[in-house]
Order: sequence, then C-alpha cells, then structure tokens
Amino acid sequence: MINVAVLGYGTVGSGVVEVIGRNQEQIVRNTGEEVYVKYILDLRDFPGDPYEDRVVHDFNLILEDTSVSVVCETMGGVGAAYQFTKQALAAGKSVCTSNKELVARHGTELLALAAGKHCNYMFEASVGGGIPILRTIQTSLTAERIVAVTGILNGTTNYILSRMETEKADYHEVLKQAQELGYAERNPEADVEGHDACRKTAILAAMATGKTVDCDMIHTEGITGITLADFEFASEKNRTIKLLASVKVQEDGKLLAMVAPFLLPMGHPLATVGDVFNAVLITGNMLGDTLYYGRGAGKLPTASAVAADVIDCARNQGRTVMGCWSEEKAQMADTSETESRFYVRTDASAAEAVEKAFCGKYDPEVSEGTLIGGEYGFFTPVMREKDFNDICRKLGDAVSGRIRLM
Amino acid sequence: MINVAVLGYGTVGSGVVEVIGRNQEQIVRNTGEEVYVKYILDLRDFPGDPYEDRVVHDFNLILEDTSVSVVCETMGGVGAAYQFTKQALAAGKSVCTSNKELVARHGTELLALAAGKHCNYMFEASVGGGIPILRTIQTSLTAERIVAVTGILNGTTNYILSRMETEKADYHEVLKQAQELGYAERNPEADVEGHDACRKTAILAAMATGKTVDCDMIHTEGITGITLADFEFASEKNRTIKLLASVKVQEDGKLLAMVAPFLLPMGHPLATVGDVFNAVLITGNMLGDTLYYGRGAGKLPTASAVAADVIDCARNQGRTVMGCWSEEKAQMADTSETESRFYVRTDASAAEAVEKAFCGKYDPEVSEGTLIGGEYGFFTPVMREKDFNDICRKLGDAVSGRIRLM
Repeated sequence: MINVAVLGYGTVGSGVVEVIGRNQEQIVRNTGEEVYVKYILDLRDFPGDPYEDRVVHDFNLILEDTSVSVVCETMGGVGAAYQFTKQALAAGKSVCTSNKELVARHGTELLALAAGKHCNYMFEASVGGGIPILRTIQTSLTAERIVAVTGILNGTTNYILSRMETEKADYHEVLKQAQELGYAERNPEADVEGHDACRKTAILAAMATGKTVDCDMIHTEGITGITLADFEFASEKNRTIKLLASVKVQEDGKLLAMVAPFLLPMGHPLATVGDVFNAVLITGNMLGDTLYYGRGAGKLPTASAVAADVIDCARNQGRTVMGCWSEEKAQMADTSETESRFYVRTDASAAEAVEKAFCGKYDPEVSEGTLIGGEYGFFTPVMREKDFNDICRKLGDAVSGRIRLM
Repeated sequence: MINVAVLGYGTVGSGVVEVIGRNQEQIVRNTGEEVYVKYILDLRDFPGDPYEDRVVHDFNLILEDTSVSVVCETMGGVGAAYQFTKQALAAGKSVCTSNKELVARHGTELLALAAGKHCNYMFEASVGGGIPILRTIQTSLTAERIVAVTGILNGTTNYILSRMETEKADYHEVLKQAQELGYAERNPEADVEGHDACRKTAILAAMATGKTVDCDMIHTEGITGITLADFEFASEKNRTIKLLASVKVQEDGKLLAMVAPFLLPMGHPLATVGDVFNAVLITGNMLGDTLYYGRGAGKLPTASAVAADVIDCARNQGRTVMGCWSEEKAQMADTSETESRFYVRTDASAAEAVEKAFCGKYDPEVSEGTLIGGEYGFFTPVMREKDFNDICRKLGDAVSGRIRLM
C-alpha cells in the first residue's frame, strides 16, 4: 500500500482525494498496489466530509510518519508550499504538485534535492492541466531534438479572446463575464498580463532543453490592449488572435522564449483551440509537429494529472525518474535581435504617416492596409524587433495597437 | 553503452539507424549512456552505406551476443519477425517494434514472455506512427477510467478521403494518385478495407482496458463504397467523412469496438485532421477529452517512436515497465445490439420507398432528405444496428450507400 498525504484541501487537493477514491480500481491496476490517502493537511476542519478523519493541522505529523512515501502539494504559493516541499523531499518522500509558480521559481533546486534523496519531484499538472505534456517530453520525445514549442497555456485568456471573437464583445465586458463564471480571478492580473503563461513557458522550455530557464528572462506581454478592432482586422485577413507561448531553440543553441498575443492564420493547428482549452504544439527535428490538446484547468482534470504523478512515484520508489533539467542555465537569445512581421493599428487620421514609418514606400501587397471603423490596420514587412520598437517609440501614441504575426 | 541490433534495413529500420545517429546528443542526455547500433540484420548487403560494416545475415550472431540488450524488429510480417522476437525476448533482450500486425496477433504472448524475462516488448510506433499515444496511456492516463477512444489511425485512407473532399475527385482517381505518391501500396486492400486500422484499434483497445482484444472480433468496414455524392451530402449538412476507430467501454464493462467510416460534424475535433495525419481522442472519466495529433506514418516519425522505445528499454534494464495488458480477454459488446443514426443513399427513383422503410412516416425534421444529383440521401432515426441491417437486407440493391453518424 502507498500512503499519501495531501497538503491543502482546496479545489485541486479535494480533487486529488476524489480521483483516488473514485478510480481506485484503475489505480490499483496501474500501480500494482492500493493508493491510500492517509493525511489531509489543512488549517480548517471539515466536519461531515467523508475524509474528515484524515484531516490534520500539523505538517510534522506527516513528515515524521515514515509510512508516507508520497506527498501531494496542492496548497499553491511559494511560502509554506516551498518549505513543506523541501522538508518532504529531504525526508525522502516524493512530492507531486500543480504549483507552477513554485516549480518555475524553485524547480531546479527541488529537482536536485529529489535526485539526491532518490525520490521524485513531479509536476505534470503545472502545465496544461490535464494534458499529459511534461511526461510526454520526458519519456516519449526522447529521441528528438525539440526545436520549437508553441502553446496556448492559459485558459482564462483563451476564454476571453474566444468570446471577444465570437460575441464581438469588448475586453472588459468579457472579463467580467469570465469572473462571474469563475474562469477569471477577482484580481485577474496574473492571467491577463501573461504571468501565468510565462511560468508555464519557463517549465516547458526547461523540459525541452534540459536546462534551467528563468521566467524573468522571458519576454511577456498580456492581452489587455487587444480590442474588437483587432479581431475585425484579423477576421478580414482570415486570422485569429491567441495568447501564445513561443519557445524556439535557435541553430546556435540559444533559446528564444516569449509570451505574447499573436495573429495566426485560421489554418494553424492552434487557431481552433477555443474557450478554456489548452493545447501544445511540439516540433521535433525527426517527428515534425505533434499536438496535445485538452482541458488546461479545472478540478478533476488537474487532479487526475497529480494522481498520475502519484502513481508514477509509487511505481518508481527509491528511483529518480524525472531528471527534467539540470542547474545549467539555458542561454537566452536577445528578443530585440529577432525578426517578425507585425500588425499595427493606428487612428485613421494618422494612417499614412504611420504606415510610411514602418513600410517605407507604400506597397499594398505587403501592408494589406484596411480601415476598421475609425482606425486603420496594416502589416509591416519582416523587421528586427529592435527596429520596430525604435519606430514605435518615435511615433508615440500614434501606434494604438501592435500584434506579432505567427 | 547500450548495444542495439536492428532487424530489417528497410524504410523504418534505416530510419531508426538514422535517428540514433543524428540525435545521439539528445539520446545520450535522455538515456544516460551511448546507444550504439552494433548489428543490422538484412538478407541484402549495402555496399557504400555508412553502416555497411554492421550488416549481418545470421540472426544467431545477435542472439548469442550477450552485449546486445535491445533489438529493434523493423522487418514486418508475422513469420520470421515473430520467431526472432520470441527468441530475443526468451534470451532476455528487450524488443521494440513498429509491427502492428505482429503486436495485434501475438502481443499478449510476447508481453507475457517479456515479463517473465524481466525485459520489455514495446511498440509505440505500431499505433499513430510518431504520435506518442501508447506510452501516454500506459504512464500518464493512469488515474483515469478510459471510457472511449476515437481515432483516425490510417494515413492512407485519411489522405484519400481528404482529397476526395477537397478536389471533388472520385475514389479510384485519388487512390491512383496516392499510389503514385507512395502513400498507398500497389495492393491497397489492408488500408482501404480497414484491416490496418483494425489492428491498431485492437492494440489501443487492449491498452485502454488492460485486457486482450482480438482483432477478428472488431467490426470493420473500409472506404471503398464512399462516393462523391456522399461528400456532397455531408458538406450540405456541414459534416465530413472520416474512417474512424471507435472504442467504447460500456457501463456493463463490455467493449464496443468498430472501424468504419463516419459522418462527423465539422466542429468535431477529428473533422479537421487532414491528409496523412493521424489523431487520437481519448475520453477519460475525470479528464474528459484529450487529443493527440501528428504524423501517423513516414520513415523518420515512425523511427523516432521506435528509438524512444529503445531509450525507455535502456532506462529500465532488468525491469518490465510496460505491462500493457493481461491474458484475460475483453468481453466484447454485440455491435448489432447497439444504436446509431445512419445516413442512407439511394437512387432518386427509389427515394420515397427507401426513406419510408427506415423512417416510417415522412418527417423532414428527422430525415433531412436531400437530392444529390440523380441520388437521394437522408438520415434515419436512431435505431438498433440489427433493425437497420434487417431493413437493408429487405431493400437489397436499393440502398446504394450507408454511413453511421458520429
């Protein structure tokens, strides 16, 4: 029997307990033995809950119980969660988590700690929720040189963008809707500014390269500046707008990583990924593109991924299987030196001057300029980010919107 | 160092050697040691080939070399491939293969043999080519009760159907094209009659249930009866036609498995999977739907999947990791007792009688009957397969086409 402790009996934690309870038959078949939730750590009591008798308030109880071999950290945050994870791993207990913030910030240290104690630190649920993407990279794409990872990693922003497109509703209206439905937090900043996607991108990039990737080094833009006019322009060009994580391993081995909205053609495999769904497209040098799609969040899908980690830990006791990445830092490419095409939106009255500043002489074949209400949108030629930004700076407020093309 | 022998230096075999050669750096990182192709078994010689010196003609050389721990069976067929696989496993050497015919026919025996010798029989490449689907079921969807698997598993037929749809070309014309491009065999029967998809379905169904699934028990239909009129009707109803593998685990635990063309709505996740691509949609009781998409065939994608198996074997020497399924046979549901809706095509002159036979009184809300050239297509109500077949039998030649609705 594998004894498990669950830290935090909130949405994900209670989901883990539920999945282990309801799918015990499958779990026993896949583990080879029973998986038993022995402790649930929470500050609160849960009178009447079927697992009431497992609830404890003192982490040391768990730490000192040598019969507990796997700990699920479903508390979130980087305070107590970090301390408890370190203590559990130091005691040789494997830890499974959905806590992307902690993994992105301290993953390298925690992985090394686990390896030193011949146990595992696993975090499948931290990226793509229920989509099995990290273990796929770690155990299935092992004969590949991964050259690119492109993904929709944040369900909240994908929901907002999808609704803006289909309902022709503006950003603030849809955000309010999303908050009412529980798809967005009261303070939505982590989602809409791209920080959540950035943490997941750092984890994916580290998995793909085997090196440490610092999320502060990832250029991150959110979706707050996107307007209905942008969607109108996109639609006219048979494109859509998605917040994408984009990771590319350059020929020189440097990593180009970015979270930003992109205008992508409707034929792109990620274009039709709607609402709260997530998807990750991985490009390998032998395999070409493979795509993984599913629910990026939600209690049971996320809990299922944590439970799969528990089973993997149970199957691999005394043996570190997820090396994931080393302490060596990935060399990051300079975003400003890369080349892109951009869509630019400006007031109709400034259209000629702005278009000229980016495109030089007027060439409708390149710019595909289009009036959208009182505004004007067009495509720049392929240009260095640095040069693009210099022109933006000179033009100041005249540039009211800008999105990269995929 | 892991010494590997490759049996059969054809398309996939030479691909495996190429992948191991070109991605040695990634492979060493993921394996922890070098993977070296020590032997290539083939009846032919390959003068001038960079691996010329590894080519041998006698399997016993490989069998008796105790330094060889992994064998890649990329010969195909169920004759010598079966004998060599048994001998290799009996000698404690792990075997990795893309040979779906052998896995579907003798997988249960070979898995048990491997388990008895503490080695592995792995066959990721046998289903979905480069898409990592079997290991995902085996190691990531472990906390799920898989309730359904739906997939496009044959690239040749998907190519033919896609081209019929987009080019409005008829079946025989597109088949000829596919043969010229090398996407279809000179004798296309195994693909177009659904036999190839059926073998893959048996493997997927066995993985999903943990039990043996006999491919002869899977109801299988091909695509040879599909006409342009069917696509015309489908398009009018905002649907498309795909050859699907459909596996459902019923509430009573019985397995409903089928390979057949289906009319599916354009919004279905598999509707936009075009050309030679494959995709598999797995429905779990906690996760909901997850989708896996990529190249279902081709030298390097298939070889990459075989090489990933080699790496997994190397990481797990002396330890059977892929239990996959037991000798217990899955209980199959009786297809004729299940319920479906069907699309039926008939000659316009027989339309009224045929529609009446299936639909009883005329109800355009249900039948959505439509003239397509000199023919007539309509939808039946939901009915038992048995009843549907009885009516078809009575009507004889008057029913010129029939496809299930998804």
